[in-house]
Formats: sequence, C-alpha cells, structure tokens
Amino acid sequence: MADQNPSEVTMDKIVSLSRRRGFVFPSSEIYGGLGSTYDYGHYGVLTKNNIRELWFSSMVQEREDMVALDSAVILNPAVWEASGHVAGFSDPLVDCRTCKLRFRADRLEDAQCGRKPSKRPGEFAECDLTEARQFNLMFQTQVGALQDGSSTAYLRPETAQGIFINFKNVLQIARRKPPFGIAQVGKSFRNEITPGNFLFRVREFEQMEMEYFVPPDEAEEWYRYWIGQRLQWYVDLGLRRSRLRVREHDATERSHYSSGTSDIEYLYPIGWQELEGVANRGAFDLTQHTEHSGTKLEYVGQDGERYTPHVIEPAVSIERIFVAMLVDAYDEELVGERERTVLRLHPRIAPVKAAVLPLVHRDAAMVTRARALFEELRRRHMTEYDDSGQIGRRYRRQDEIGTPFAFTIDEQTVEDETVTVRDRDSLAQERIPLAGVAGWLEDSLERPWSSPKGD
Amino acid sequence: MADQNPSEVTMDKIVSLSRRRGFVFPSSEIYGGLGSTYDYGHYGVLTKNNIRELWFSSMVQEREDMVALDSAVILNPAVWEASGHVAGFSDPLVDCRTCKLRFRADRLEDAQCGRKPSKRPGEFAECDLTEARQFNLMFQTQVGALQDGSSTAYLRPETAQGIFINFKNVLQIARRKPPFGIAQVGKSFRNEITPGNFLFRVREFEQMEMEYFVPPDEAEEWYRYWIGQRLQWYVDLGLRRSRLRVREHDATERSHYSSGTSDIEYLYPIGWQELEGVANRGAFDLTQHTEHSGTKLEYVGQDGERYTPHVIEPAVSIERIFVAMLVDAYDEELVGERERTVLRLHPRIAPVKAAVLPLVHRDAAMVTRARALFEELRRRHMTEYDDSGQIGRRYRRQDEIGTPFAFTIDEQTVEDETVTVRDRDSLAQERIPLAGVAGWLEDSLERPWSSPKGD
Repeated sequence: MADQNPSEVTMDKIVSLSRRRGFVFPSSEIYGGLGSTYDYGHYGVLTKNNIRELWFSSMVQEREDMVALDSAVILNPAVWEASGHVAGFSDPLVDCRTCKLRFRADRLEDAQCGRKPSKRPGEFAECDLTEARQFNLMFQTQVGALQDGSSTAYLRPETAQGIFINFKNVLQIARRKPPFGIAQVGKSFRNEITPGNFLFRVREFEQMEMEYFVPPDEAEEWYRYWIGQRLQWYVDLGLRRSRLRVREHDATERSHYSSGTSDIEYLYPIGWQELEGVANRGAFDLTQHTEHSGTKLEYVGQDGERYTPHVIEPAVSIERIFVAMLVDAYDEELVGERERTVLRLHPRIAPVKAAVLPLVHRDAAMVTRARALFEELRRRHMTEYDDSGQIGRRYRRQDEIGTPFAFTIDEQTVEDETVTVRDRDSLAQERIPLAGVAGWLEDSLERPWSSPKGD
Repeated sequence: MADQNPSEVTMDKIVSLSRRRGFVFPSSEIYGGLGSTYDYGHYGVLTKNNIRELWFSSMVQEREDMVALDSAVILNPAVWEASGHVAGFSDPLVDCRTCKLRFRADRLEDAQCGRKPSKRPGEFAECDLTEARQFNLMFQTQVGALQDGSSTAYLRPETAQGIFINFKNVLQIARRKPPFGIAQVGKSFRNEITPGNFLFRVREFEQMEMEYFVPPDEAEEWYRYWIGQRLQWYVDLGLRRSRLRVREHDATERSHYSSGTSDIEYLYPIGWQELEGVANRGAFDLTQHTEHSGTKLEYVGQDGERYTPHVIEPAVSIERIFVAMLVDAYDEELVGERERTVLRLHPRIAPVKAAVLPLVHRDAAMVTRARALFEELRRRHMTEYDDSGQIGRRYRRQDEIGTPFAFTIDEQTVEDETVTVRDRDSLAQERIPLAGVAGWLEDSLERPWSSPKGD
C-alpha cells in the first residue's frame, strides 16, 4: 500500500464522495442552500456518532477523574459578560459602500466586491470601504415575550462557559477534588463572516470540550499531559502520525490570560490546520465568574487549603475530526484493471461495521442463512444486508463507505456452513464458520487496529 | 413491592433527587438562573445518552427501512415560510399595561399581574390588558454581517422540516422506496411564554423525530403500526403499562392537514400528559415544500408509478422520556428500620450499570481484586468504584442513582475468588465467581428485564 501524497486527496474529492454516498449534503439545498451550512446524511450521522462515543468513552467512561455535563445553549447573558465574549469575541469588519457586502478587515486579500470584482482579489481598486469596526460573532436572540434589550440572549459560541458556571455544583455534588475534569459535548454557534472550506469553518458545529481543574502548581505538568493524551488518541484512531503535529502558540498569538496554548494540527488538503486546541487557561475563567457572580469558585480542602484551580482545556469539534478521518482514510487504487475508492477508516470510526452479502439473491438456502446472520450482527453493530447486483459492485459500495468486513454467503456456505470474510484493506478473503462470525467480528473490533496506511 | 400510588411521587421529589444526586441543575444558577432552563449533570448526561442510543438503535440500527439524518439548527428561512411556522407557529398574548408583562391569552386563569397581584389568579381586577396578539414562538436571529431583515433566520422549532427538505437526497442517494423512514435526533428551540413544570416545558429540548414515508393508501395502516410500536417501546423499557395510554385527538384538536394524531400519554405527577405524539401528516409537508421550492418531492417508481408519499411522524423529546423514566422508577421503602430511596430504572436506562465495592479500603488483597474488576467492567459499561465509608451507605448511594448491580469484594473473595452481587430491586445477594462477573453482567444487561414495579 503506497503511502499517499496528501496533496492528491483534495477537498473536492472528499466533498464529492461525501455527497455521492450520503455522508454530507449542503443544507437547505432545495431552497438554494444557506452559506456554509451542511446536513449530515445516514453515513455521516453514524460516523459522527462513533466519534462522539469514542471521545466520551475515553474521556469519561474510562477515567475516574471526570464527570459529564450538558449545559444549555442559551445561558443567562451575564455569563458572556463575565467571560469577555460580549466585549471581545469579535472580528474587525469593513463595509463596501459599492456592493453593501462586509468583509473581514484582516482578510481583505481574499475578498471581492460583489458589484465590481477586481481582477485580482484584494485590490478593491474602485471600491469605497468603510473603516474597520468590530463585529461580535455571537448570534443574538430575544428570550421571552418582551422584545427589548433586557431579554437579549446569545447562542453559546463555546460550551466551556457552561462548564465553568457549574464548577461549584460538581465540586459539591460529585464531591471532587482537583485534579478532576468536566467533559461536555454539544453544539456551539458562531456567526462567521467568512465561513468555508467544507466543514472546516461552519456557523454551527458540535464541540467536545473538557475543562480539567488542577492545583495551580501542577498546571504546566497537566498541560503537557493533555497534549500527549489527545495526540495519542488520534494516532490510536488511525490518523497517520506523519500528518499530525503539535504547534505551540507564541505569546502574541494566544489569549492574554493563557500561559500556554498548543494546536494539535492535521495536514488537511488546505495545509496544516488546527484539529484540536489544548490551552492552559490559568485561573482566568473561575476568577472572572467569581467576580461577576459573587459566588466564590474555588477549592477548599478539609485541611483548610484554599485555591482557585487552574484549568487545562482540550477542545475540538466533531466536524474537524470528521474531515481529518475522511481525508486520512481516502484512497484510490487499482485492483486488477479497475479503480476502486476506499475509505481506510479505523473500524471503530467506520459508519458500518459489517456487510452481509448473499451471493445469489434468489437462492433460498443462501438467503435464509444470510438473513439469520444479518439479524444476529445488527443487534450489536451497524450492519448492512445487500443482495443487489454483482458481488464486485456490492464490495465497491462498501469500500466507499469504509465497511471493514464483508461476509459473503455462497454455495459452499450451504454445504459446509462457512462464510467468506473479505477484508476491506488487504482484499484478503478467508473462510470462517458461519456460527463463529459474531464472535469473530467482536474480536476484530476490539483488537488494536493495525493500519494499512503506514505512518 | 407494593404498587405505588403515582400521586405520591411528586414533581418536587423528582426535582430534589435530580439536584441532590447531580442529574439536573437549574441553569446559570450562580447568575440567578434563566427561567425554565436546566443543565444536566453527570448522571443526567449518562441517562440521556442511554435514552438517545436506545431510540436510535431501535429506530435505525435494528431496522432496514430507515436512514439517519442530522440537519442544521439554522436552516434557510424559506423552509419556515413553506412549513407554515412563520405565519402560524404562535400563541395569543396580551400585555398588561400596569406591569408590562405578557401573558398567554388562552391561559389567563394562571396569570398574575407583576405589580398588582390579584387575590385569585386570573382576576386581573385592576389591570389594563391589551387585545390579544399572536406571538411567534420561533427564536429569531441574524445570520451574516448584515443586520437587516434579509438575513433574519430562525432556530428550528422542530427537527421534522430538516427531514422533509432532505427527502429527495435520501430518495436518490440511499435509493429508497416507500415505505421508508428518516430518523433524526437534535435540539429544537421554542420561545415558550409560560414554560415550567421542571423539564416538561422548556425553551430548548432534544427532539427525536422520525418521518415515515408511505404510499397514500397505506397511511392509516402505518399510523396504527407506529402507535403500537412506540407504545411497546416504552413498555419494553420498563414504564408501567397502567401509566401509559393512547389518546386520539379529535378533529378540532389536530392540525388541519392531519387525518389522525394520537398522543402516547404518561401519568406524570401533574396528570396525564403527552409523552410522545404520533401524527398522520398526509402529504401536507412534501406538497408545501414542492410548491415553495419548485423541487418536486414525490416518489417515481421504475414502472412510472408516481405519487407524493404520506407521512407518519412519531415525535418525542428526550426530556419527557427522562422525566417519565425517573417518575416511574422512583420509590421509597423501608429496609429494616431505614428508609431508602431507589430508582428502579430499566438496567439499559440506568446511568451506571455496575458498582465495584471493596469492603475494606485498606485491605490490599481486596483492593487489588476490586481495581482489576473495575478496570475490566468499565471498558464496556459505565462502572463506579467506591471505597468510601460504610458499605450500607455506599449501597444507598447507588440505589439513588439506580445502579442495578453492585459487586462487593470481601474477605471471602480473597479466599475463594467469588464476589457478592447485590440486586438493587430485590436486595438479594448471591455469590458468583470473580472471573465470571463480566460475562454475568453482560448477560444480565442483554436479558429482557422483569420489572419489579408491577404493571
């Protein structure tokens, strides 16, 4: 299996496969769409569910120092005053007086006037631009029946603040002592002015954030620990190590309160970009909410020890993992004289785990066995039954959605009660007993995966 | 186990347990809250995850006639014009000129002026009320940088419309033929004027909706089928049959386009209320979107057969299931001379499946075995390790969160490698081999549950 040149897997190929196979559709398509908004089809939902469950399992289920939280999207607006989002979560924008469009003042090199497009982007030769103004990225709405300012509220631009404001609840009720973490998965919303690059920058996205509360003198150590943990998680789920790197922000790049921020970057088709961020946020958030709410958010030990914990935050969106997984898995290769497209997804990420394929759909003896196997397997795992057309085409279809194992029921099955297992990556076929398929599949999904993709 | 009188399980008791044990907190509490908004704590998240996964598994994984979808919260606003929500998704409101509050005109009997409260609600003797006006329940926001009407958008008040507008994508790409369904789970938002009753009426909630597309002449049959399926699902998950009923709406109550709507009602502490709705929506939605979008949303068979499918919709929110599950499970009973509170949740709904309890936390031989067992079990299931304090108190704590099985490691374990399994409901204790615990737990969770609650 030749190591791919990442530059050959273009975003266009990923978008095209996503649409063709029903992973992702442009949203509201019959109404002309809605810029940079997407709906997930069947395989997209299954893949996202797997990503979410694997994150949750590794973060919460398999750890003792973690509790889960699911806070509201629309919080008391005072939360966003305290967090600094009302004052500072903004991009600088300029208006074009000619076309009335707005552009990010810090990205004018990519911009085009809507009426008088320049020959080269960013020239704006004939255009009349206003001074830059700050534009807040939080979506606003009104809560309750009163349409005045007193009921203005915001859609959360991040899930993290919902965690900080519940710090005391968790401390008291879950009886936790630092170091401990609070993990949350949920949608966040940002009114991006220049969304784009497929799922890469979208206005609504599903965040997976964890805030890890530690004694102040242990912050640096835990910051390094979480960078390592999160990087390893991606490697374990099959992303090539050579396409992952850790990039530490320099002091000018990171938030003023952060004493360290690192991006775990992936080599997307558009270049190295943030996959996940890990930040050492210090005591900033708990201090802000203590000041604004009047509720002391600190840890008090039984021995009278008392401090405001520092916070380490690994934060990622399912969308960026989703794209990285597809890009890393995408492969085109010649099999004999035919080209196939195959998603070499980690079996635990793959939307469908197994396909059950009766070789001849009119053969009652095959069909009976295939149906019984299908009904057994789908109780535990997403399984597809496909009796349509040539077996080769059925394999190709499963390859394109990344199904790791296909079980074919043929004439020999009727004779000796064995089936063929076809491996998506190696194309190797072996015969195993029909009665042992469920156990074989279980074992194969639990085993560490040996990636065919190289490093 | 005496059958409870449902009236003894008050909403207050559920709210109190939820808060005390960290299932649900009032949201934004340190900022004085935000009316009728809640954050879910650790056990609440785990319980909701179970409800979501069980719904998804029964709706999608275990069926061949279903595909999953996850559409955006903010859709093209034309969707809500077509669906009728912009024009008609509203409540009639009156303003009080005295206190400036708004009230639902159809619920004035519960209302109180903010400045001059009447002795009895609904009198408004001294108040000066405006005429009733329609108030739309959709949250509005602005998308993009232009703050004019052209970029007004809505937070979806239901997930169903995201399904209808993707009908054609699914038909083409998933190559489906009616009858088939599209299932979706996700948050919806409604600007309720009179939210309340704990999680019962909240402004943001997680819907689980499925739209089932059928040939028009099969609609009535499928409508009956889905009422039966959904009712049975609740019985299988342990809700008492005697607290469930199907109530068919009469013609004045249901939407004008619906030829049949039934509520599956549960006997909540506040009385019989909708748990899930099942509606026969006819061809209304696909016809509306065909007219407004100009895209024909119909089924065309290979033989030239052509029709607009009718739609059967079972729709429920996780919140209402969550409350019904807690209410149905809640029990207080005397064990010897002590009272215990126990949640008799179906094991698949229970947030934690197993507790591992070393009898003496200082005993190295016990602790070694307990840790090894804990680490084995948590790979597959939410498991807690608790070595704090008296064993009786540890059992009580697990009872309150509904953990079905507790495994106690004691002196005998060190001698003969057996452990005690304690059953949450019967309090029966039996000894089983330590090495067989994982398998025993797996079997117990897969078996149909025989509820101790009676019918």
